[in-house]
Amino acid sequence: MNDILPSYLRDAWWTPGDAVDATTVHDAATGVVVARVSARGADLAGALEHARTVGQRSLGALTFHQRAMLLKRFALVLTERKDELYELSKHAGSTVRDSLSDVDGGIGVLFAYSSRGRRELPNATVYLDGPVESLSKDGSFLGRHVYTRLPGVAVQINAFNFPMWGALEKFAPAFLAGVPSVVKPATPTAYVAEAWVRILVESGLLPDGVLQLVSGSVPDLFEHLGLGDIVGFTGSASTADGLRRNEGVQSGRVRFTNETDSINASVLGQDAVQGTPEFDAYVRQLMAELTAKAGQKCTAIRRAIVPAEAVDDVVAALRAAIEERVVIGDPHVDSVTMGPVVSRAQRDEVLRQVEVLLDAGGELLIGSTDAPDVVRADGTVGPAPEGAFLSPMLIGFPDPATPAAHRIEAFGPVASILPYRTVAEAADLVARGGGSLVTSVATHDDGFAQEMLGRIGAYNGRVLFLSREDARSSTGHGSPVPNLVHGGPGRAGGGEELGGIRAVLHHMQRTAVQGSPETLTALTGVWHAGAATSVGRHPFRKSLAELRLGDRVSSRSRTVTLDDIETFAHFTGDTFYAHMDEESAAANPFFPGRVAHGYLLVSWAAGLFVDPEPGPVLANYGLEDLRFVTPVSPGDQIRVELTAKQITPRETDDYGEVRWDAVIRNQEDALVASYDVLTLVAKEA
Amino acid sequence: MNDILPSYLRDAWWTPGDAVDATTVHDAATGVVVARVSARGADLAGALEHARTVGQRSLGALTFHQRAMLLKRFALVLTERKDELYELSKHAGSTVRDSLSDVDGGIGVLFAYSSRGRRELPNATVYLDGPVESLSKDGSFLGRHVYTRLPGVAVQINAFNFPMWGALEKFAPAFLAGVPSVVKPATPTAYVAEAWVRILVESGLLPDGVLQLVSGSVPDLFEHLGLGDIVGFTGSASTADGLRRNEGVQSGRVRFTNETDSINASVLGQDAVQGTPEFDAYVRQLMAELTAKAGQKCTAIRRAIVPAEAVDDVVAALRAAIEERVVIGDPHVDSVTMGPVVSRAQRDEVLRQVEVLLDAGGELLIGSTDAPDVVRADGTVGPAPEGAFLSPMLIGFPDPATPAAHRIEAFGPVASILPYRTVAEAADLVARGGGSLVTSVATHDDGFAQEMLGRIGAYNGRVLFLSREDARSSTGHGSPVPNLVHGGPGRAGGGEELGGIRAVLHHMQRTAVQGSPETLTALTGVWHAGAATSVGRHPFRKSLAELRLGDRVSSRSRTVTLDDIETFAHFTGDTFYAHMDEESAAANPFFPGRVAHGYLLVSWAAGLFVDPEPGPVLANYGLEDLRFVTPVSPGDQIRVELTAKQITPRETDDYGEVRWDAVIRNQEDALVASYDVLTLVAKEA
Repeated sequence: MNDILPSYLRDAWWTPGDAVDATTVHDAATGVVVARVSARGADLAGALEHARTVGQRSLGALTFHQRAMLLKRFALVLTERKDELYELSKHAGSTVRDSLSDVDGGIGVLFAYSSRGRRELPNATVYLDGPVESLSKDGSFLGRHVYTRLPGVAVQINAFNFPMWGALEKFAPAFLAGVPSVVKPATPTAYVAEAWVRILVESGLLPDGVLQLVSGSVPDLFEHLGLGDIVGFTGSASTADGLRRNEGVQSGRVRFTNETDSINASVLGQDAVQGTPEFDAYVRQLMAELTAKAGQKCTAIRRAIVPAEAVDDVVAALRAAIEERVVIGDPHVDSVTMGPVVSRAQRDEVLRQVEVLLDAGGELLIGSTDAPDVVRADGTVGPAPEGAFLSPMLIGFPDPATPAAHRIEAFGPVASILPYRTVAEAADLVARGGGSLVTSVATHDDGFAQEMLGRIGAYNGRVLFLSREDARSSTGHGSPVPNLVHGGPGRAGGGEELGGIRAVLHHMQRTAVQGSPETLTALTGVWHAGAATSVGRHPFRKSLAELRLGDRVSSRSRTVTLDDIETFAHFTGDTFYAHMDEESAAANPFFPGRVAHGYLLVSWAAGLFVDPEPGPVLANYGLEDLRFVTPVSPGDQIRVELTAKQITPRETDDYGEVRWDAVIRNQEDALVASYDVLTLVAKEA
Repeated sequence: MNDILPSYLRDAWWTPGDAVDATTVHDAATGVVVARVSARGADLAGALEHARTVGQRSLGALTFHQRAMLLKRFALVLTERKDELYELSKHAGSTVRDSLSDVDGGIGVLFAYSSRGRRELPNATVYLDGPVESLSKDGSFLGRHVYTRLPGVAVQINAFNFPMWGALEKFAPAFLAGVPSVVKPATPTAYVAEAWVRILVESGLLPDGVLQLVSGSVPDLFEHLGLGDIVGFTGSASTADGLRRNEGVQSGRVRFTNETDSINASVLGQDAVQGTPEFDAYVRQLMAELTAKAGQKCTAIRRAIVPAEAVDDVVAALRAAIEERVVIGDPHVDSVTMGPVVSRAQRDEVLRQVEVLLDAGGELLIGSTDAPDVVRADGTVGPAPEGAFLSPMLIGFPDPATPAAHRIEAFGPVASILPYRTVAEAADLVARGGGSLVTSVATHDDGFAQEMLGRIGAYNGRVLFLSREDARSSTGHGSPVPNLVHGGPGRAGGGEELGGIRAVLHHMQRTAVQGSPETLTALTGVWHAGAATSVGRHPFRKSLAELRLGDRVSSRSRTVTLDDIETFAHFTGDTFYAHMDEESAAANPFFPGRVAHGYLLVSWAAGLFVDPEPGPVLANYGLEDLRFVTPVSPGDQIRVELTAKQITPRETDDYGEVRWDAVIRNQEDALVASYDVLTLVAKEA
């Protein structure tokens, strides 16, 4: 045992035998040693194989809902101990406010995927995409898109800026999909990742093999990956470029999801002049993005694109806001609102890029490249040469087309401001970023918004429109949310993460499955029309334990009379002419004359299929995909067939959902209406 | 002018100035010269820029539905002249039956995308993915995934085997998305591509800049591509590997969809012994895949994976089927069922790969590497040394794990047969292909099917289950269909094509759009709750020309009495206890006591919002996403708000669809039910 930060491999903690090449990590504000990091000699191949065997087996034994329940328990365990994580994160320069996006944000992703998993996925292990596709006239050959999980391991390579959120936003969807994870944090903040992994390990909740942690660099990682594995990478565009050239990725065997920092833009609308709520919201957001995490966010605003005549106003307002609100210093001091960047190496790198921007024609309009005086750990203000402090900087470019402004990223509290003259020019400037994670647009002009989206949509993974209506409730330019995709084209990496269930599906393979209704029913857990049915005891008398797919009730026929239509019309008040007036109805292109109300038909259908006595069926909570096909005239008869189509027991309740296929036909067997009836049914009788 | 096959660039035919490096293409059966192919000196950069400017403008002026209508007209024009295309295709070795998949298949894709485009896309230019996402408690900040078209050009690089289908299955979705195409056919069948492009050009239907053709090789193509462009490639895995290494693809700027031939498998189930319908269907399909297009299909069966004890039966049955039905010869002779491969070079390449397979331990069980006697153009039978003929070959591998069997593809009428002993072994053999476009499984055993799908799903883009139920109606192992995705992981290229609207979206960028309800309404053409509404003249009195998003009717309140519930129950027959029996209803976990029927509520709601006199609203054709939220007890009052949510005029009718947002609330403003009402409304009053 030594003082190296441990890895968690094959369900056990592991530390290298010696510390020869360990990297020393320092507190960003004080320079004190925080951790030493190395994974030298780690049995990576063994860890990956452990995931593919033990981890796959653990998750394969669980349904989507069961995995989702575990995610919630992970979130609760982490919530209990989040103060520890805040404290550790301060060493990396994060204020508690910064930790809201990393620590609370990470926990929030677990909660979000837990709840979406149970709401939007079946309580099963395969996921169906889109409707059934008919492939033969007689209905005996069907197609369906089915997602099954990847058979390998999800390797998650994270950036230093979000050691918790960045890892968990990849882990949660992988776990829900049923794919075990190997987490590889960035060295500068690996101790934060070690902490949350340790909390989960200590909870005893982790199934075997589902989560491993490699604390340290692993140069030969990709050599051990193959078809069925997936890599989720977040980091710099240059590192991503190197990884992508690996043979496994090249050949298409290894899935590679890439999310790199990008030169994101924020556009001030032409209408949003000083004095408007949009102008204020724009400046407030610009300041927030410049200073949160000391600007170390892949989503931060790097280019403020503003009407030429508004540049001075924006600079003045931003300067005032910074002077009023920004307190730079050691995050251990409560009054501090902006900490150092993660390391002095990172600070030097930022300053190098700032020099490049200035050499390219930029002017420093706000801030300075000199080390700022800061609030030190003891509360005094002054220089802190051991700390990685920077002041917020805004660089003006009189020529907005200057290539460096669209290509160079100073990954710290640095942004450029670029003037534009027309909407087209503003959009062109956004596009010059070569693909971004996010662009925000402050405007209260729908026309401006429409034109911008049409022109910049394809260059952005996310576009946020800021106006007086949502300025207060906006989640912010720089904040990915679990229910929307995060990622972007081109320079932003071309990948997509999050976006609710979309991210789960990135860990699965979509396969077009063709077969008979019988086979598709067996494979998907959803009854398909044409598959076997069973007519016996009324299915409403069966609990979830007894009900089977294909259980059916076939009703008697009931004749619709003109009197029925009249009665229904006067009872409901629905005296639409197609039901009431023979001549006008016949003049309508779709009706032969007076016809029954669609609502009458479905109401009667319920009367025809229902079994009224108390029993396992608890409630009808909805109805989906109702289509009226053949009109019903007085004298026609209708009957209904109701067939159990999908059965979803809930993990947390003593009931579950049953979806029924409902088909109404007339006396000539023509299709009158089809729909799905949604009910809640008790697990036990 | 010279005799070189022309290209179609910048809306004009173009031929190289000299023919120095032109490739001569020969008739596959007779060796007669068919065409000379070269694109030397073509202004490729100009062509691409023409697409990005003129082509984008042409398509940008059209909605999805208008583009879809054009696709149908293209299909009709090609249908009229398909005999010319059959005749030309014979030179490439295709029988008329082979042309059914290429010529008719290509036309079929145009029809399919025309119809799906009008049915599944809005009559607009952006596409919404998934539901609205609530991002703030007060509803003032929402998120929505919006697809906008790529701003560049779609370059379609096709394989020689499907010069028409292969090109059109890429062109149709690109066109529908609004992205102009540059088609680059393979040289050996470039004259077939030139023919269908010429037919479309001659029709006068092509908008400017939307379709260009490069007849000949273009080595520097990728150097001219950038962010916003997309390449769809079909061909060999080795060519794809080379293309993928291009800098534009590497950096993520150029989208690259890759579909390569793969070592597809067909598994005979353990239950499918000789004498079963599955055995017969398996052998029939194997013969079809071996001989159709002389085996030159990326989806053809390369590995027959059969129970060890059934190998001899399968070989014998296949041999008999080939002897009985296969007539090799010049496709110009009607009785011929299998033509030559595309060229003598291709024949030699196939024979080289066969040698590799035999050297690796394979035994030739059916067929011969000698040139077969064939039916010649004049009807005589004998050797045809100028033709690229091969006989169907089946190669046995006593050791099914032989690597060559899973890696080497002889792209002609060649398959291997591999024995297996357990389901797990069969699945493992499938996986050894390293990712396939398709695997078929002949079985009548649901358990076998389930286990196979669980194990092989992630290795396949498509899995077809063949049984007695679908043997007659199956579209076949080797036939991609427009409504299911075509493509596969790993060796198969990792790409996806077709799959209905999915392929359209490959030509668009998905962007998460955040904003206020007002902004989202303006951007998407769909009314979002919280955006402005207008209550004035009843919206049922407005034609499509007058109706606006947000037009609303707010109904009066109506009190529900116990008597109403009784009346409705007895009229409909729906006497479910929750409506009829106070005590039992109160015992139900969801109801306070007797409650109104959900069907009563929506029926009354219709009565409350309807305007009954004849007018522009023609019919209610359906209802979607109905959810009952708060139960309604006797004495409660309900009222309904109906708001115009989406307006979709049809291109081909004098009416269109209007989707209405319906919300029922009670006297306390609690949400009782929400749903969408679907109506048909006349364009003019």
